[in-house]
Amino acid sequence: MSEQQFPKGFYACGINCGIKKDGLDLAVIYSDTPAAAAGVYTNNLLMASPLQVTKEHLEAGHTAQAVVINSGVANAAMGQVGYEDASYCTDILAATYNIPPNSTIVASTGVIGIRLPLEKIVEGIKYSKQQIKALSESAADASHAIMTTDTVPKTASFEFTVDGKPVKIWGMCKGAGMIHPNMSTMLGFVLCDGDIEAAALQSALHAAIMDSFNMISVDGDTSTNDMVVVLANGQAQNKTITMESKDYPTFAHALREVCISLACQIVSDGEGSTRMFTVNVTGAPSQKDARIIARSVASSSLVKAAMFGKDANWGRIACAAGYSGANFDPSKVDISIGDVVMSKNGQGEVFDEDKALTYLNKDNVPIYIEMHQGNNSATAWGCDLTYDYVKINADYRS
Amino acid sequence: MSEQQFPKGFYACGINCGIKKDGLDLAVIYSDTPAAAAGVYTNNLLMASPLQVTKEHLEAGHTAQAVVINSGVANAAMGQVGYEDASYCTDILAATYNIPPNSTIVASTGVIGIRLPLEKIVEGIKYSKQQIKALSESAADASHAIMTTDTVPKTASFEFTVDGKPVKIWGMCKGAGMIHPNMSTMLGFVLCDGDIEAAALQSALHAAIMDSFNMISVDGDTSTNDMVVVLANGQAQNKTITMESKDYPTFAHALREVCISLACQIVSDGEGSTRMFTVNVTGAPSQKDARIIARSVASSSLVKAAMFGKDANWGRIACAAGYSGANFDPSKVDISIGDVVMSKNGQGEVFDEDKALTYLNKDNVPIYIEMHQGNNSATAWGCDLTYDYVKINADYRS
Repeated sequence: MSEQQFPKGFYACGINCGIKKDGLDLAVIYSDTPAAAAGVYTNNLLMASPLQVTKEHLEAGHTAQAVVINSGVANAAMGQVGYEDASYCTDILAATYNIPPNSTIVASTGVIGIRLPLEKIVEGIKYSKQQIKALSESAADASHAIMTTDTVPKTASFEFTVDGKPVKIWGMCKGAGMIHPNMSTMLGFVLCDGDIEAAALQSALHAAIMDSFNMISVDGDTSTNDMVVVLANGQAQNKTITMESKDYPTFAHALREVCISLACQIVSDGEGSTRMFTVNVTGAPSQKDARIIARSVASSSLVKAAMFGKDANWGRIACAAGYSGANFDPSKVDISIGDVVMSKNGQGEVFDEDKALTYLNKDNVPIYIEMHQGNNSATAWGCDLTYDYVKINADYRS
Repeated sequence: MSEQQFPKGFYACGINCGIKKDGLDLAVIYSDTPAAAAGVYTNNLLMASPLQVTKEHLEAGHTAQAVVINSGVANAAMGQVGYEDASYCTDILAATYNIPPNSTIVASTGVIGIRLPLEKIVEGIKYSKQQIKALSESAADASHAIMTTDTVPKTASFEFTVDGKPVKIWGMCKGAGMIHPNMSTMLGFVLCDGDIEAAALQSALHAAIMDSFNMISVDGDTSTNDMVVVLANGQAQNKTITMESKDYPTFAHALREVCISLACQIVSDGEGSTRMFTVNVTGAPSQKDARIIARSVASSSLVKAAMFGKDANWGRIACAAGYSGANFDPSKVDISIGDVVMSKNGQGEVFDEDKALTYLNKDNVPIYIEMHQGNNSATAWGCDLTYDYVKINADYRS
């Protein structure tokens, strides 16, 4: 996925509208034709206002044509005022691009409990009309404008073919975990020029997120502003993909690949982290158990700290599987790091610590949990827990 | 609880049997009459062998008269060999003190996946017979002998009256979280000279643990060896307390107080922590919701890091409540630190940061979450997340 593929008919920009002193803080995405749209939102009961507005818009029409995202202020925990501010942003966006208000999406990321600087955002949205360019020329700015404490922008793309027609997917996302100072939020925006029915889009998005953004852990905290949306504007002119189409699995696979790439970039850029690790669970009695175990190991503070310390500590891995809540027989489980088997049938093996260390030195440490009690598998990704994570998150807000 | 109260008829010792190079590593507790006994064990599927043996013994007779605890080796993830080793320890303990094998309890804490040094432990148990002394003279040694990376021993006691007869409870416990190197385990041993029916003892222990050891969080990891047992030898000669007795609530309260004191000592001695914090949830729609929210806030890495950084970050507290899984209306919730109200009706208040800082400087930071949607409450305790936590847990095992 090194060479970026850009779907047809999408335009974007990333500008500074004055929320941040320096750097880009406002992104706008625009499709020159209406696009089928689907979204997945945080499970946090404190769903922030932009998500409420976006959810209402998408549930009303399942269509969208423009997206505005600001960084710096989250517009969360602001009650009715926050809702009105988010709605006002979408009204301005709709007026600027001459589209129905229901065809707009709004997202925010930044400090909780502070009011949006509405005037700056309104001016920014209006200014975006002059700045907006083909996605190939604006993707870099847009992906920068949504960053908070992310150290690198995160994008991914994928191309596939339907009926001989090339279809392209491109996505961008930002940060994970709750970030200093009160910065929150994982945001993802995926654009596709395929022709996909809204219901199929929603279904494929749910499935893709289950295997990607839901399988990563930076610090286990779920933000108030987490959201992933996908737009499909049909400009590839393929035969419309429905859930019954023979091409639906092809599209679902492509969307999943993009989401997994984005999710792994988030983990890899985890706050203060020096490396990531991949937890592969195989031979599980059920898909649910496989997911629960993979997530529990990827989320364990002690496994994360062991990864930082390059410690081939299979006991912590076994322990995190044991308390995950999944139901299994621990006496059948083998645990390996790379091809070094550290425990077999639930008991420790004598193993080559030096060889294990070569895997622990990698940027992405491969952990394998073979359960030998079924045919289900799942993969989760985590990053190590470091001094810098504590430093970033302990600093006083001022 | 500064002055220790010691129940009648209990004897103990703490010795070095050679598992650790220096320091005490083996404790034995003995009651000179059979005691009603109850236990609560880890939920981790990888239950260590000593717990399996203890559970079988207590379920067979609900009675115990002697306990042996070693530190240094956990006897976990050792399969059938581990089970046989733990059983052998209890056989030796039974033979040494001339009691039935079913009347014995065994516990271990230390490195996972290494075999118990049986010969040393057998010699230690035999030697204990000469060393054992009244609890008042041996409590300090016994509570030291069960420590791993604990920096201080942890004990608590409580006295109450039944039918004019004084009844005493004393308990000791060790560490929380999974500790370097592969050290695991929260262990608690509570001794009472009251006459309490085994079923009432089990019921009161479950209730006490729900409010104490289950409401603390050091790092969210649940060990393979966690266990709390309580013995009641009846030497206070009170009328037997059953679940129907009018004195049952008095006993249950006393046991709860001892368990809460021990649990808070564990949090306060959390790995690398500089302070603890107490999360008081009131006005919750149900007891279950209150517990879930209190635990979620006490367990949040971001709240823990904020406590280390002395950051009055109510957004992280609200956020951790929001993703806890409890069902509630966030727009009714007030959050305070001490008497400083930081947010009201789910939205931020202007508050005195300097005054908040005086509470954040305390050894135990008081956090209040008033939900205004019911009459249920719960309290949980956490410790801050520090550089030293990462350091302790990242160090290589060797």
